[in-house]
Amino acid sequence: MTKLAPHSYLSDRAQALAASKIREVAEIGMGQTDVLPLWFGEGAWATSPLIVDAAVASLRAGNHKYQPNNGAPDLRDALASYSNGLFTSALNRENITVTPSGMQGLMLTAEILISPRDRVVVLEPGWPNLAGAFTAMGAALHSVTLAPKAGRWSLDLDDFLDALTPDTKAVLINSPNNPTGWTMTAAEQRIVLDHCRKHGIWIVADDVYTRLYRHAKHAPSFLSIADPDDLLISVNSFSKCWSMTGWRLGWLTAPKSLAAKLGQLTEFNTSCTAGFIQDAGRIAVTQGESEITDLQTKIATGYAIAADRLSQFDRVQFIQPDGAFYCFFKVDGLNDSFAAALEIIDKTKVGLAPGIAFGTQGEGYLRLCYAQPEPVLHDAFERLGTYLG
Amino acid sequence: MTKLAPHSYLSDRAQALAASKIREVAEIGMGQTDVLPLWFGEGAWATSPLIVDAAVASLRAGNHKYQPNNGAPDLRDALASYSNGLFTSALNRENITVTPSGMQGLMLTAEILISPRDRVVVLEPGWPNLAGAFTAMGAALHSVTLAPKAGRWSLDLDDFLDALTPDTKAVLINSPNNPTGWTMTAAEQRIVLDHCRKHGIWIVADDVYTRLYRHAKHAPSFLSIADPDDLLISVNSFSKCWSMTGWRLGWLTAPKSLAAKLGQLTEFNTSCTAGFIQDAGRIAVTQGESEITDLQTKIATGYAIAADRLSQFDRVQFIQPDGAFYCFFKVDGLNDSFAAALEIIDKTKVGLAPGIAFGTQGEGYLRLCYAQPEPVLHDAFERLGTYLG
Repeated sequence: MTKLAPHSYLSDRAQALAASKIREVAEIGMGQTDVLPLWFGEGAWATSPLIVDAAVASLRAGNHKYQPNNGAPDLRDALASYSNGLFTSALNRENITVTPSGMQGLMLTAEILISPRDRVVVLEPGWPNLAGAFTAMGAALHSVTLAPKAGRWSLDLDDFLDALTPDTKAVLINSPNNPTGWTMTAAEQRIVLDHCRKHGIWIVADDVYTRLYRHAKHAPSFLSIADPDDLLISVNSFSKCWSMTGWRLGWLTAPKSLAAKLGQLTEFNTSCTAGFIQDAGRIAVTQGESEITDLQTKIATGYAIAADRLSQFDRVQFIQPDGAFYCFFKVDGLNDSFAAALEIIDKTKVGLAPGIAFGTQGEGYLRLCYAQPEPVLHDAFERLGTYLG
Repeated sequence: MTKLAPHSYLSDRAQALAASKIREVAEIGMGQTDVLPLWFGEGAWATSPLIVDAAVASLRAGNHKYQPNNGAPDLRDALASYSNGLFTSALNRENITVTPSGMQGLMLTAEILISPRDRVVVLEPGWPNLAGAFTAMGAALHSVTLAPKAGRWSLDLDDFLDALTPDTKAVLINSPNNPTGWTMTAAEQRIVLDHCRKHGIWIVADDVYTRLYRHAKHAPSFLSIADPDDLLISVNSFSKCWSMTGWRLGWLTAPKSLAAKLGQLTEFNTSCTAGFIQDAGRIAVTQGESEITDLQTKIATGYAIAADRLSQFDRVQFIQPDGAFYCFFKVDGLNDSFAAALEIIDKTKVGLAPGIAFGTQGEGYLRLCYAQPEPVLHDAFERLGTYLG
């Protein structure tokens, strides 16, 4: 018999996978020296010594053993208190499952909700990994478009509700949105929640950027308006707010009736999150509020520079974000953002993410992460001026 | 309309999940004081300071950022060298994907190989999580039985090959096996490899206990006989050999043509493993060989005690394991191992895993992990004597 190559024997889901266009650009760019890395959703700053010290103390104390599937009880308590303080919700330990990254929280959510061919509604442009986890579990995706309107990103709520048909299993709402910074208003959330209650549709809220909102201490949250047994799973992460991207720590907030199943799925995915990382997370969430306010200040400075400079480039259509830490801007005459991102690296040594990575609606756009120190941003915009000016 | 409870809206896979009987027993027992914990597959010893120091140094050096999907290049190189040294294989970086736990390695393997209804052959008794990850991805499982024969666990190879029909997608071979300690011989591996080559069947080798083999430095390994593009994925972990259960670090060895897809699936599962944990792993694998030999010595002592004492209990049918760190023994008159495990906790304050947790073939058995210091084992067997004597 003819011997087939190993990759031809893979699962349908594996064969359907496409490479991340963000990673592809970055991998080419990382081989070059002096490229300013504004492509990933990662701030420039190291994790606070407060948090590092907590991990070190836990490691030194011998916290090297298996942990409970749903997370260490003291961290679950701390996360419930954190949310209750912010959103005046009434959560407790049973609502919280600790996950080794927000990404793993999304995958667990996809695993617990999605059977093959379930209809799932997503926003586009959107972070590809959010839809990716659900596609990997067999979801049939239906996209609703975010579009610029009077210099802001906007969602047509009627279109959105029309897409949330009674046979829809889940809607994925990343607000503030990566890459656009679009943020759903509290009034819109109330309407969406009522609609989803009526039809039994799960709301999956990717709340990773909730604390990176330009107009208040936090963005509007479904956690503020939902009942404890609403069909709502909020996915969150320590990565952005506490500058812990490489630590891989996140959490889910879900109805108590899901706790046991989430624990069982965790058992089959990673079994648990490292205890010393959970100890560090507990210190972050109980003592690290000033880390978030510091970051918010840095991000505000970065935003001011980015908004000012991008607005001045002839070829750029600047669209104001409400949250997250990106500018997602249209470039006149750009119809191949992947090629453009590579050309920009080559010509200016600035790493940007191509808009096409966030869906076909993103073609013609580039994403820039402004979570960088001022000198880096000034340098980046000087360089970009030769291409975008 | 009647409002349904959230758990009634879950995926087929979530609704089909059953709780781990090991966890169930442990959760009841952990609420009690003075229970000797011989239920989990976890040694009693803390991680070596050599490895802890490496993690601390990495944390202090600011290794807090995103890592490559397939793992840090230096750790991938180190793992390839480690395997080449043990198995005289010819692996390199492209064959290795770092995973946040061996369990996550199994889940990635299930995700990359299994489409719904794919036939997968497993051994029983077997660790439930191995089959569990594949079931969660939709596999149709077919079990082949390990049975005691002349005081040893044995596989009927003809039955096994008969089960490996041409329409089989993958066979899961955990050798040394949890819970039985059964270990596939090199001659059997050669026959199985030839058969699987002929029919295009993937071999998934759960090699977590390869270094815990009672008769040599390591158990026979498919890595010693396979070609680089054979349909073989070996799953391994730092948990057992280097006493790093709670760190959640493992790795896959796979054909190079799978590296890109494994990276993409990692992106949607956890994106990467924490860099400071990978740095600790690199020190373990390059400088921690004496940790393994130390553990092997401790395990040998534990085994000697367990074999001696279990052989003397009237109600126990002792079956000699070849590897791993468990005794899986039959108890005369026992027909509800779950109830028995609870009763043993209650009466003797010793935590054992019920045989039923490892499949229906395991009913009537109990599993005891002897990776414990001598005094703990002596104490445990004294206590167990009142129940098993």
